[in-house]
Amino acid sequence: MNHFQLICIDCNEAHNPSFELLRCSKCDGILDVRYSSSYIEGIRENLSFNALIELMTPIIDKEFIVSLGEGNTPCTEISTVGSDIKQHLIAKLEYMNPTGSFKDRGVATMISAAKYYGVKEIVEDSSGNAGASVAAYAATAGIKSNIFVPSNAAGSKLAQISAYGAVVHKIDGSRSDVTEKLIDYKDKFDLHYGSHAISPFFIEGNKRFAYEIALNPEIDLPQHIIFPVGNGGLLLGAWKGFMELFLFGLIREMPKLHSVQSELIDPITRAYYSDVFDSQEGVTLATGISVKSPPRLNQIIEVINQTKGRAISITEKQMIDAKEFLCHKGLYCEYTSAVTLAGLHKLVEIGEINTGQTVLLPLTGTGLKEN
Amino acid sequence: MNHFQLICIDCNEAHNPSFELLRCSKCDGILDVRYSSSYIEGIRENLSFNALIELMTPIIDKEFIVSLGEGNTPCTEISTVGSDIKQHLIAKLEYMNPTGSFKDRGVATMISAAKYYGVKEIVEDSSGNAGASVAAYAATAGIKSNIFVPSNAAGSKLAQISAYGAVVHKIDGSRSDVTEKLIDYKDKFDLHYGSHAISPFFIEGNKRFAYEIALNPEIDLPQHIIFPVGNGGLLLGAWKGFMELFLFGLIREMPKLHSVQSELIDPITRAYYSDVFDSQEGVTLATGISVKSPPRLNQIIEVINQTKGRAISITEKQMIDAKEFLCHKGLYCEYTSAVTLAGLHKLVEIGEINTGQTVLLPLTGTGLKEN
Repeated sequence: MNHFQLICIDCNEAHNPSFELLRCSKCDGILDVRYSSSYIEGIRENLSFNALIELMTPIIDKEFIVSLGEGNTPCTEISTVGSDIKQHLIAKLEYMNPTGSFKDRGVATMISAAKYYGVKEIVEDSSGNAGASVAAYAATAGIKSNIFVPSNAAGSKLAQISAYGAVVHKIDGSRSDVTEKLIDYKDKFDLHYGSHAISPFFIEGNKRFAYEIALNPEIDLPQHIIFPVGNGGLLLGAWKGFMELFLFGLIREMPKLHSVQSELIDPITRAYYSDVFDSQEGVTLATGISVKSPPRLNQIIEVINQTKGRAISITEKQMIDAKEFLCHKGLYCEYTSAVTLAGLHKLVEIGEINTGQTVLLPLTGTGLKEN
Repeated sequence: MNHFQLICIDCNEAHNPSFELLRCSKCDGILDVRYSSSYIEGIRENLSFNALIELMTPIIDKEFIVSLGEGNTPCTEISTVGSDIKQHLIAKLEYMNPTGSFKDRGVATMISAAKYYGVKEIVEDSSGNAGASVAAYAATAGIKSNIFVPSNAAGSKLAQISAYGAVVHKIDGSRSDVTEKLIDYKDKFDLHYGSHAISPFFIEGNKRFAYEIALNPEIDLPQHIIFPVGNGGLLLGAWKGFMELFLFGLIREMPKLHSVQSELIDPITRAYYSDVFDSQEGVTLATGISVKSPPRLNQIIEVINQTKGRAISITEKQMIDAKEFLCHKGLYCEYTSAVTLAGLHKLVEIGEINTGQTVLLPLTGTGLKEN
């Protein structure tokens, strides 16, 4: 396991990999996986996309790889979006992952790492998609999982998490109270924290999203990808994947990565337009991106700027209309996914996306969970 | 569209294809798609699996093909099922289809045919997976859909069907009352009946299930496949696919196709063991296979016998235990899917499946719909 290290995204300090290390020991910054240059040199000789994604992963010993068939989600064209949209629109159906959301690629890698490091029991806080995903992959790996959820979380999500055999801890109070209780519990029983919001392994697994797009012979590499952003795990994973492909010379241009949030809770958009971090916690239908303080906020802003994307916010009404439109095209997604289409309308309106360009919308979660 | 005809499975009468023809004009029998021998001769020269499945389909004009990314569902190994199971077990995750069930391949072909024949509005009766699938694909094709459902159908299924923009007709009374009301409505407004239980196009689309298994380089062709059977659409489609591959010389052995039902409603098992059709209508948790009089019953029995499979029934308790086991392996499926694992235990017990053999379980629908 010496083909990669965990690097602090703030102070660049390198750490030997471990599962529980979520923050830099020097400055408390967030960590990312980085491969050693000799390892990368070694694999440059075998540059097929398929071989690459097998190699550019922290867990390479097959016996530790935990999978439930995640990834390779289909892409489908969306036609006739409206008279103002003259783009070539592709939806990538992330809700066709094993637990019904994009979380599965990242969690598969995170739980593979947990298995590699001999983790027997794990804690995670989530009210929804991430909790279900961690519960499912932990079950497959034979790892006991404790999922901390707000006591008012949606019934269908709680039922799914329980079905996988996870221990569900329902906590009264705010979302921050849930995390606080989790920390107490984790410390008391000396357990491992499988935080999808922070774990470098989660971001690393999400890279495959980019590889799958670049690999797909049936679609052109899009000029734009519009992400719903809460903790930013998919946007950051995608960016890393595209960067690798770019650095290896396998793609010639980076897509512009855009972030969309609900105007009721939009720390990314606010940080993008000002240097001051302006915190707020509104109630949006897009529960999957209802995140007040994303731990990787600065990193997200950097990626948006670097790829010449934009951070925007949309209204609940725009999101509701977009969900209805997508469902009426046979694409049954959650509100959180529908923000991508609402975002497209806005990005076209402000001239960021032009006629004839190819735009990809990841539909991140299934509408079945919102019943 | 003269590369195939619709053939009566009872009297063998050939009919020119149309969308509304669901029964034989001569004897009222059920119809199947059959390709002309000159067409088959023509494609024998191009025998790659991928090319074959593109060609062995009734709708070959690309402009009429309706797709939401169905099929190519992953296969995953299930380990440590219990001390009595010494088989190599593979689950095929049919719940990772666009609407959450195996129905999507068949419905995609059925709705493609509807589009080809210029159908503008369609009726279908279902309380669940088929209704959602028809609603989704009709939406994509721009066809108006009317889904007739029992008024006590599950809320999550109704929500999904409505979300696609279908008109939902809730009918009080038994399942047969629903079909009766549908027939009245269809006749009154002169609409097309998209019956997944009868349509030859539905069976034809399900063939791809077999091609995907035979195509998959990562798994061996299984000796056994255990199907949950209601109307038998997946078993019959799979059989047709395997038969084509066998006839073309692309597989050397036919898998044994087994049928599993709940003992509370098991017309197939009863017909398999006696020539007398013994009808009953119990209430099982496996709602997806709660079918009292499958229109293709004789055809199902023939396929089971021909492939040397078995028809068996299992208890609700065995099904509940099997679902819990699968979920605890990270496979969140519906009760209807869990009957396959319960069936495996029984088939091993009665000596139909032996140590070391490869067995495939199609997990036909997602647990998310049972909330």
